[in-house]
Amino acid sequence: MAFTEKDVVTMAHGSGGQAMQQLIEQLFLQAFSNPALNEREDQARIPLSLLTSVGDRLAFSTDSYVIDPIFFPGGNIGKLAVCGTVNDVAVSGAVPQYLSCGFILEEGLPLQQLEQIVKSMADTATAAGVAIVTGDTKVVQRGAADKVFINTAGIGTIPASIQWGAQHIRPGDSILVSGTLGDHGATILNLRENLGLEAALTSDCAVLTPLIAPLRDIDGVRALRDATRGGVTAILHEFAAASGCGMSINEGDLPVNSAVRGVCELLGLEPLNFANEGKLVIVVAPEAEQATLAALRAHPLGKDAEVIGTVTDTARVQLKGIFGASRLLDLPHSEPLPRIC
Amino acid sequence: MAFTEKDVVTMAHGSGGQAMQQLIEQLFLQAFSNPALNEREDQARIPLSLLTSVGDRLAFSTDSYVIDPIFFPGGNIGKLAVCGTVNDVAVSGAVPQYLSCGFILEEGLPLQQLEQIVKSMADTATAAGVAIVTGDTKVVQRGAADKVFINTAGIGTIPASIQWGAQHIRPGDSILVSGTLGDHGATILNLRENLGLEAALTSDCAVLTPLIAPLRDIDGVRALRDATRGGVTAILHEFAAASGCGMSINEGDLPVNSAVRGVCELLGLEPLNFANEGKLVIVVAPEAEQATLAALRAHPLGKDAEVIGTVTDTARVQLKGIFGASRLLDLPHSEPLPRIC
Repeated sequence: MAFTEKDVVTMAHGSGGQAMQQLIEQLFLQAFSNPALNEREDQARIPLSLLTSVGDRLAFSTDSYVIDPIFFPGGNIGKLAVCGTVNDVAVSGAVPQYLSCGFILEEGLPLQQLEQIVKSMADTATAAGVAIVTGDTKVVQRGAADKVFINTAGIGTIPASIQWGAQHIRPGDSILVSGTLGDHGATILNLRENLGLEAALTSDCAVLTPLIAPLRDIDGVRALRDATRGGVTAILHEFAAASGCGMSINEGDLPVNSAVRGVCELLGLEPLNFANEGKLVIVVAPEAEQATLAALRAHPLGKDAEVIGTVTDTARVQLKGIFGASRLLDLPHSEPLPRIC
Repeated sequence: MAFTEKDVVTMAHGSGGQAMQQLIEQLFLQAFSNPALNEREDQARIPLSLLTSVGDRLAFSTDSYVIDPIFFPGGNIGKLAVCGTVNDVAVSGAVPQYLSCGFILEEGLPLQQLEQIVKSMADTATAAGVAIVTGDTKVVQRGAADKVFINTAGIGTIPASIQWGAQHIRPGDSILVSGTLGDHGATILNLRENLGLEAALTSDCAVLTPLIAPLRDIDGVRALRDATRGGVTAILHEFAAASGCGMSINEGDLPVNSAVRGVCELLGLEPLNFANEGKLVIVVAPEAEQATLAALRAHPLGKDAEVIGTVTDTARVQLKGIFGASRLLDLPHSEPLPRIC
């Protein structure tokens, strides 16, 4: 589709009339083309045999994406909308297979920007092996939304042998992260606050399915989550609440890029609380620690993986500082940064 | 949860921190409680046996809801968000089973309003026999969204015996609607334009699953859709495009409430183009026409069902006027009314 710089989203594009049909045909169907979508029914129809051949449980997740700005180093809102939901499905151990996609567009959004977002979604979905099979487009008048919001819902199937979940966590387990912390949050903060560090900061926005796949073959994996809003701290608190255990993290073991560390020190922020969009927090039995670390580091997305702490029986989330003193790692009342994802 | 009039959505409610956890626990989990949701993993986990026991294909659909105003006679944005997606799943012949739900909240939204919306969603889902199993909440700053937008994605399973689809439509088939046209569109238009007809106009917003269920036992049902944005006209054009057939509608057979007819005549609008939120357009083989009409009329939601026309071999969508003259029923460039759903 050849949009010019002057072409923008109009109210008619969300109206159910000809203008919407044209946008669907010329942009969405071309970018996302697959058999279920191309049938253009009100719903995708997927043979259940395609799911049961993979596993015995459906994993189903959704997220809306409202990130500001919509383009950032390392991605855009479209790439994020595919990565984020695919990852939320994949951390169950599922093989992500299908996505739905709902756009809320602000009147006046340049169609070239929408096209770039849609193309990123299509490329990311293809690379992740998932199909965008059903969708919806709404347009609201100028000022009633901020440029574009995207919701995706994802479906995958969990192999029968996989039983990952936070309730399996027990004292003595090891806590790992799959790479450097806070890259996404620091990247967006830098853009939003004009800190001038664009060259050194890139979002880690990525599909984690290939990093997770080899973990299915390791005995002793207890639970996985991807650390997004609220950062690793939020996940540690979720794990603690679900398992009744404590989490003890070693500050000196946390992998953090130097530019991210710089932003955090400058502003008095904690990388553990910062958003990521391509990082796993993993709890494994002690005997699975080294195999898990090796599996993670064998993939480019996991090259900076580290063991960062252990599960305790105290029901506290605490950080052991590099000089040995411990402090409680509270769940902040709110994230330092709104509209991070 | 006892919110006061002064309690409003704050940026912290979307932050991934404590404020968001409290909102999730005290509002969403209480209202939507079910085993998959209550596990509080990043994704719902549903045994595939619960799906394969019903049918052989998954139906998967999504819609975002941006309706303005968010409360209207006959419903609110929450009820609409459940009805609309459940209906989009059900018109495939599927039994709707699970919903995801993504909220985008504007900072400052009164929490009492959010509570009322969530309660409507819970009540409507329970009545429809579906569970809201996974969700997400985002908050954007004042002015970056208009009060509340909701996305739902729905999953259901299509029984093996059901093969409904627009490509099965053929010349000579009968076209039916399940009730009066344009009630939702006229209700919203009346509110938006202050026409003063509140007493006479109510949205038809409803879950259509129980109206559709008996149709599964009728041989000769070709295709169903629910006529929302773009009205019946949009569905007729979709059916024509998918089947290569024409659609001939008899103006005198169209069921229209008198207040809706009044609004349309006042403003020069066409009830066929007006949005509905609880009306089916059904194409059936001629020999199935009377059984379908009887099945529809046996349910309160279908008491005003009518045969409104026939499928032709001319690839045109046309309206035969009450005095016999025919005219083409064009798909409008846009709906008369933005943010109708």
